[in-house]
Amino acid sequence: MRYVVGVMGPAKARKKDIENARVLGELIARREWVLLTGGRDVGVMHAANQGAKKVARSLTVGLLPSTRDRVSKYVDVAIITEMGSARNNICVLSSQVIVACGLGGSGTVSEVALALKAGKEVILLGATPVEEKFFKKLGRSLVSSVQTAEDAINVILKRFEQDDAHDLQAAQPWGRF
Amino acid sequence: MRYVVGVMGPAKARKKDIENARVLGELIARREWVLLTGGRDVGVMHAANQGAKKVARSLTVGLLPSTRDRVSKYVDVAIITEMGSARNNICVLSSQVIVACGLGGSGTVSEVALALKAGKEVILLGATPVEEKFFKKLGRSLVSSVQTAEDAINVILKRFEQDDAHDLQAAQPWGRF
Amino acid sequence: MRYVVGVMGPAKARKKDIENARVLGELIARREWVLLTGGRDVGVMHAANQGAKKVARSLTVGLLPSTRDRVSKYVDVAIITEMGSARNNICVLSSQVIVACGLGGSGTVSEVALALKAGKEVILLGATPVEEKFFKKLGRSLVSSVQTAEDAINVILKRFEQDDAHDLQAAQPWGRF
Amino acid sequence: MRYVVGVMGPAKARKKDIENARVLGELIARREWVLLTGGRDVGVMHAANQGAKKVARSLTVGLLPSTRDRVSKYVDVAIITEMGSARNNICVLSSQVIVACGLGGSGTVSEVALALKAGKEVILLGATPVEEKFFKKLGRSLVSSVQTAEDAINVILKRFEQDDAHDLQAAQPWGRF
Repeated sequence: MRYVVGVMGPAKARKKDIENARVLGELIARREWVLLTGGRDVGVMHAANQGAKKVARSLTVGLLPSTRDRVSKYVDVAIITEMGSARNNICVLSSQVIVACGLGGSGTVSEVALALKAGKEVILLGATPVEEKFFKKLGRSLVSSVQTAEDAINVILKRFEQDDAHDLQAAQPWGRF
Repeated sequence: MRYVVGVMGPAKARKKDIENARVLGELIARREWVLLTGGRDVGVMHAANQGAKKVARSLTVGLLPSTRDRVSKYVDVAIITEMGSARNNICVLSSQVIVACGLGGSGTVSEVALALKAGKEVILLGATPVEEKFFKKLGRSLVSSVQTAEDAINVILKRFEQDDAHDLQAAQPWGRF
Repeated sequence: MRYVVGVMGPAKARKKDIENARVLGELIARREWVLLTGGRDVGVMHAANQGAKKVARSLTVGLLPSTRDRVSKYVDVAIITEMGSARNNICVLSSQVIVACGLGGSGTVSEVALALKAGKEVILLGATPVEEKFFKKLGRSLVSSVQTAEDAINVILKRFEQDDAHDLQAAQPWGRF
Repeated sequence: MRYVVGVMGPAKARKKDIENARVLGELIARREWVLLTGGRDVGVMHAANQGAKKVARSLTVGLLPSTRDRVSKYVDVAIITEMGSARNNICVLSSQVIVACGLGGSGTVSEVALALKAGKEVILLGATPVEEKFFKKLGRSLVSSVQTAEDAINVILKRFEQDDAHDLQAAQPWGRF
């Protein structure tokens, strides 16, 4: 099974979030990880997919809220959930690790909270001090905070090595790669 | 259709949250509103339902995550979603207004975020200053913050009166009562 | 917890299905069982709720596919799932027994199949010989077939008595009433 | 976006269904279509994925019901829905066409019904006469019935050509390839 990194972020994103998402998507693809996003043709989702598709043989999966949404043209496989914001839970459960690229939207905040609920590691990229304080208190050791896409990749790599080492104690049959 | 008030809160709640939930449940039932919760036999959910069932002819609806969860004995109608935390989105969509009774759990935080995403009014009951700051920035005019169950009811009543006045402009066919 | 009977059936129903649904809804309400339907203002759903609301203190719960659907005015509590046809699984999981009032629609057929998958008893009301043959082979002892609403109630009553007798062996914490 | 073919079928399948699924998976992969299944390591799902992975650069996506299910080792990307049988609706919405490889299970029957509800073309592979009669009446021109994996591919190819021709009239932004 292939390693899946979820990149979440606002549809109406800051310029900084868009740029972070594009670099992040490309770096994820260079590592040969699968990029998973909300799949729409706007904001952080679109930018991350665009970054990933600069890389040959990259794989991008988009989890769309409904049949009425426009899919980013940089999505290879579209999963149509037809379940609105409840699809956010599928996004986080299907990713081995989540990067939240900007927390300005309530959809993204719900994804971070659902990820923590599911025991998933979350990397905040470009969070404000209040956002960082709020989520570190909520998620404790599951939450990291970085300011660049490169640092987000470094956190994932560190986790990846740990997983490798602890492979034999893996409890969840699907959570490994 | 009957007016539905959603009460959300942690399974592992502070003593204060439990007491607030019990009073809140009772006050909701006295107004003849339907109480909607996550339905389990723990924490804020259980306490709110217990409070409501002190009132004759109260109606409590519990939206359970799965068939494996124990239902609070104070729930009249159990809706079994079998969709884990994604059921949080149904909780908020099915409530006309949401009261978050303590924000110490990531499930509750996801519910507040999903409610704001859906354009629902949220009342924070007993929030800390950081929580209040975080959510007021995220949800703006949709978010109120109070410290007692009585004040939460007053906010709902004010909204209820506005709805009544604006009834003819109602856009969503199901959102009215 | 209260006993919940799910009544499923086509939005575009035969006249016979509509009449059966109206009588069935009334008989369910007379027994003080909760009526659960798909909640929309059309076909079998609407007719069953209309029948139930002839009875004082009846309780009707509607599980709507989305915020865009019109709710039957005979629904007391509307649960908004925002998950399209996937809500059919919640309908069957939340009912102790399901009556399929006409099988002319693919939505209803999916509900019967999902009910059998979940091990729920299904009563076919007004099925054709091919439909009856198909579902009896699929669901075996879980499937009964009747031609009148009164007979459907008799099947439920018989099951209800058995449940009562076997109460102590109940395995699922939520499946009892 | 890549063309996705959904292969559905029982976990407890007949020997014939298993063989059909393995050939079908391989033929789908040879066409460079994405194979989408329920993703578990049993029955038709497992066999179809096994067939597909005989082909270099094939892509298999598995839509798992929950975190507790074992993923087939032939699945490249696992989407964890945590929504039980309601995930069946996502399987059909995310496939451009569905092949039902044996109809002996209620889960598969629910998938065919949900596909027809969503207006998706369904190919029954190895159906009995009663199953064929039942579904052709329910789904009319959306339903084809074949006895070999090769014939299933031919039906898909014919549909694929029509889609190509009608491309400009495409109504749904995601439903095309």
